[in-house]
Amino acid sequence: MSEYIEHDKAGVSVGLVEKKSFAFAEPPNEMILESGARLGPVTIAYETCGELNDDKSNAVLICHALSGDSHVAGYYSEDDPKPGWWDIMVGPGKGIDTDKYFIVCSNILGSCIGSTGPCTYNPKTVEPYGLDFPVVTIGDMVKAQKALLDHLGIKKILSVIGGSIGGMQVLEWCVSYPEMVVSAIPLATTTRHSALAIAFNEVARQAIMADPNWNNGDYYSGAEPDLGLAVARMIGHITYLSDESMRIKFGRQLQDKSDISYNFDADFQVESYLRYQGAKFVQRFDANSFLYITKAADYYDLEKQHGNGSAVEAFSKTKAKFLVVSFTSDWLYPTYQSRTMVQALKKNGLDVSFCEIEADWGHDAFLLPSKSLTAMVKGFLERVNNENGKEENAL
Amino acid sequence: MSEYIEHDKAGVSVGLVEKKSFAFAEPPNEMILESGARLGPVTIAYETCGELNDDKSNAVLICHALSGDSHVAGYYSEDDPKPGWWDIMVGPGKGIDTDKYFIVCSNILGSCIGSTGPCTYNPKTVEPYGLDFPVVTIGDMVKAQKALLDHLGIKKILSVIGGSIGGMQVLEWCVSYPEMVVSAIPLATTTRHSALAIAFNEVARQAIMADPNWNNGDYYSGAEPDLGLAVARMIGHITYLSDESMRIKFGRQLQDKSDISYNFDADFQVESYLRYQGAKFVQRFDANSFLYITKAADYYDLEKQHGNGSAVEAFSKTKAKFLVVSFTSDWLYPTYQSRTMVQALKKNGLDVSFCEIEADWGHDAFLLPSKSLTAMVKGFLERVNNENGKEENAL
Repeated sequence: MSEYIEHDKAGVSVGLVEKKSFAFAEPPNEMILESGARLGPVTIAYETCGELNDDKSNAVLICHALSGDSHVAGYYSEDDPKPGWWDIMVGPGKGIDTDKYFIVCSNILGSCIGSTGPCTYNPKTVEPYGLDFPVVTIGDMVKAQKALLDHLGIKKILSVIGGSIGGMQVLEWCVSYPEMVVSAIPLATTTRHSALAIAFNEVARQAIMADPNWNNGDYYSGAEPDLGLAVARMIGHITYLSDESMRIKFGRQLQDKSDISYNFDADFQVESYLRYQGAKFVQRFDANSFLYITKAADYYDLEKQHGNGSAVEAFSKTKAKFLVVSFTSDWLYPTYQSRTMVQALKKNGLDVSFCEIEADWGHDAFLLPSKSLTAMVKGFLERVNNENGKEENAL
Repeated sequence: MSEYIEHDKAGVSVGLVEKKSFAFAEPPNEMILESGARLGPVTIAYETCGELNDDKSNAVLICHALSGDSHVAGYYSEDDPKPGWWDIMVGPGKGIDTDKYFIVCSNILGSCIGSTGPCTYNPKTVEPYGLDFPVVTIGDMVKAQKALLDHLGIKKILSVIGGSIGGMQVLEWCVSYPEMVVSAIPLATTTRHSALAIAFNEVARQAIMADPNWNNGDYYSGAEPDLGLAVARMIGHITYLSDESMRIKFGRQLQDKSDISYNFDADFQVESYLRYQGAKFVQRFDANSFLYITKAADYYDLEKQHGNGSAVEAFSKTKAKFLVVSFTSDWLYPTYQSRTMVQALKKNGLDVSFCEIEADWGHDAFLLPSKSLTAMVKGFLERVNNENGKEENAL
């Protein structure tokens, strides 16, 4: 625990950033999805920080998790109260140093924060897609990111970085576009969900679908399934924490210090916290996107999709250098899953650094301020950047 | 894993058992609950197996968990397809031997399987109580069991046994009626819920309360909150299993072996299993009872209620001999919680046996066939029964 640092609100920031978007796959040239379905046109919301160098060799792609977006660092305006979701890691002199690297982060396909997803308009009906939106996969999300990088003229990614579902995208990049990826940092992730992870996602989906306002995904013109989505978020939220972190943060502390209520109010602080998290989430996230993204994560199976069931075979064309990080108290993507991944990478003779960080904060640890993680990412990026230059000079 | 045995369906059974009930607390002599509220009349459904001996020294009280009932062993009729919930443990020659002991098991106060609870009639309104039912505690449940034992003329319990919320009742017996309890077997339980356990219960409750059919608890004359209760059960069900057990039982096996559906059907066997468990549960359990019993479990705090925050102090009047059992893969009531309990018992100089059983099956392990558990319970009961006789003879 002691290794966690307070988020330095007065710290340096990349400053002002701008929302951008890229549209492609205009019919009849739609994206062909992994399912075989066609999707187009597609808009991908993205943001960049730092400067792309002349030889375009300093691009770092950051992949966000379930509920993230393209706003990874910096502020939208001078009076913006809150920076991007990974501002503690991304900025001048930070772990991912915007003085050195050109950072790209895009909202994933199927999400609801600028990119095409179930809440955006279906060009055929001029109504939101709802459940007419095709089921997309982690592979489809990465394919859309590839189109964006092509558009930006980036042919090699110095590093692709992400945690959780973002980490799945990192792995997918390494196996789908091996020539493009110089290095990769998958954090708190897995090559495929365990039955436990699928189970939690499924119950969260059932909570949404049990809400009559969900209306089979068709709710954009009426009341939204806020209660169901809040329950889904609460379930997810528990899985991002840990027994230890909840004991430290809440224990059995009561909301009203004097006594229990003997009714069904939120007596304990942990109850009140979860209710708050649920209520806050529904203001910014779409219930259908929650269904689509969790389904994509459950479907992801690197071994099956790329290696006939073998992780070693799946990574056989990968050329990237790896920094793999897991966290001791992460029970959603436990360390044994990262170890399996590391073994498969090493069997392919790849350059792999692996670290299990001692952390009480469960799966969420990858998003929290950590001196160890920051130092590790910073050092790894410097090394691959230096080696990348040398290897190119040696040619 | 290998230590688990198949449930022997052809095994000896206690045979036919009968549903019984005991009514008490007729107004104006209502039960005074821990909250201060009054409740009456109260009916407690119970069953017994075996014979009470002449000196009434062979009574064993079994306390059930959240969704259990009084039907602990045997069959209701010759063509009853299914025995009671702990038939593998309770019967002639079994772990809890009905040839030697007189077994009593009652449905807990607040439940819905014969005992007074939110779905039974409020004598004042002649309508089901709904949320007018007062919040009951583990202490209240035990107080009702005490009234039943008084009615049966039992002054000493040879052993009180239960797992999970049943284990909380076991502990409550030891501290509330120390003179009555000769021995106690708390299984897979805790003296108080962790924030993690409260969090899961709270989300399950929120799932029920989010169902519009719940209607603030008033649904007995209309559609019931089946979808919400099913989600609540699914959440609970995951917490009773473990990463290991789910990997062994389901892994990533698909329902339709050929491929994934690319829609929101249950693709994985674990999804289908959870949906089935949810749908089955709503046929036999009342949503309001789920709220009341989980709340009672969350409120339970042996240290606070009986020891000014100290477990050592809470157990200071306890005289029972203890067999405490935890299971390695139980992450809902992890072994460290049983160890804390054992330390407090030992600091009081009590006779305590403690065993952590190596088991993959998570919290549910206490209900599954286990040679180790059966042998341990059988041996412990024989010892306390022998010692009980000798101690009485020595007087």
